[in-house]
Amino acid sequence: MVRWQPDTRARLQAAALGLFVDRGYDETTAADIAEAAGVTERTFFRHFADKREVLFDGQQFFSGAFVDGVRAAGPDDPPLAVVASALDGAAAFFPDERRAWSRSRQAIIDAHPALQERELLKLSGLAVEVAAALRDHGVDEPAATLAAQSCLTVFGVSFATWIADGENRPFAEISRDTLARLRALTG
Amino acid sequence: MVRWQPDTRARLQAAALGLFVDRGYDETTAADIAEAAGVTERTFFRHFADKREVLFDGQQFFSGAFVDGVRAAGPDDPPLAVVASALDGAAAFFPDERRAWSRSRQAIIDAHPALQERELLKLSGLAVEVAAALRDHGVDEPAATLAAQSCLTVFGVSFATWIADGENRPFAEISRDTLARLRALTG
Repeated sequence: MVRWQPDTRARLQAAALGLFVDRGYDETTAADIAEAAGVTERTFFRHFADKREVLFDGQQFFSGAFVDGVRAAGPDDPPLAVVASALDGAAAFFPDERRAWSRSRQAIIDAHPALQERELLKLSGLAVEVAAALRDHGVDEPAATLAAQSCLTVFGVSFATWIADGENRPFAEISRDTLARLRALTG
Repeated sequence: MVRWQPDTRARLQAAALGLFVDRGYDETTAADIAEAAGVTERTFFRHFADKREVLFDGQQFFSGAFVDGVRAAGPDDPPLAVVASALDGAAAFFPDERRAWSRSRQAIIDAHPALQERELLKLSGLAVEVAAALRDHGVDEPAATLAAQSCLTVFGVSFATWIADGENRPFAEISRDTLARLRALTG
């Protein structure tokens, strides 16, 4: 009989991150992660296709936070106001209690080109989704793609700032400041 | 005795693109490319690490075109004027006679996620180089990274426009128009 364990996935993620940091990403196997989380390897593979995907879980929630933000904008807001709303939506995905996890995850990704490629593909997919949401919101092309890419630009700089050593401002405050800097630059 | 053939590399690239389009990227081997170019497989591997790299050759010249553009900007130009100069520099890399090759290359990349990841990594590296050139030009962070990413945003939209069916304006004209649209959006 299989007992339903809602926290198995989260336990596997925590165990994986711990092993990636302590032992190294390349030196950690799916079997090691399963063992550290107290489950079988078979259970690991019911949750994740491979060890890499542990780091890229939840893409749909991540993208959804941006898209929800786009939808929350006013119907007549100019494109950059819609982007501001998308970034406020994304901030929900980066509460302060997630900062330590995000720092560790990024350090692992930065050290592995294959993970960087995977992360870039994720962000590229996100830009495509935000552009689609902007078009649904009434923004024409190429403005929708330009605004979506600018959203990702501000997100990228904001995220790097948010996980920087010693930084403790909330994500939303940083992203608003970064968007204002972009506007000052391009205006 | 080996005869020096300055055009071997270009011949291998033309042969590879032809085979990728006609036969399919997955179905083409390095040996096929060498044969089509009339050289040995060993010669192929003296020029390229694998068939994928045939599509990603010349990264240093590509990045160099942007960086030269940054350096050509006036010392007191605001960041976006430096970006405009970088895009003008990039235009030298995309003369009209290259458009057909660029269209074919992009179609192959769009059909293969692994090639998309490689392309994204290339563009990400380019953004890092442009940001470094902007800092050398006296632009502080985070403005340098915001401006470099905006440069890539404009480049991406401009390139997609340049290779679109029926488009025949030169790259520089498209990129200036796209930059003006970004400024109108964010200003």
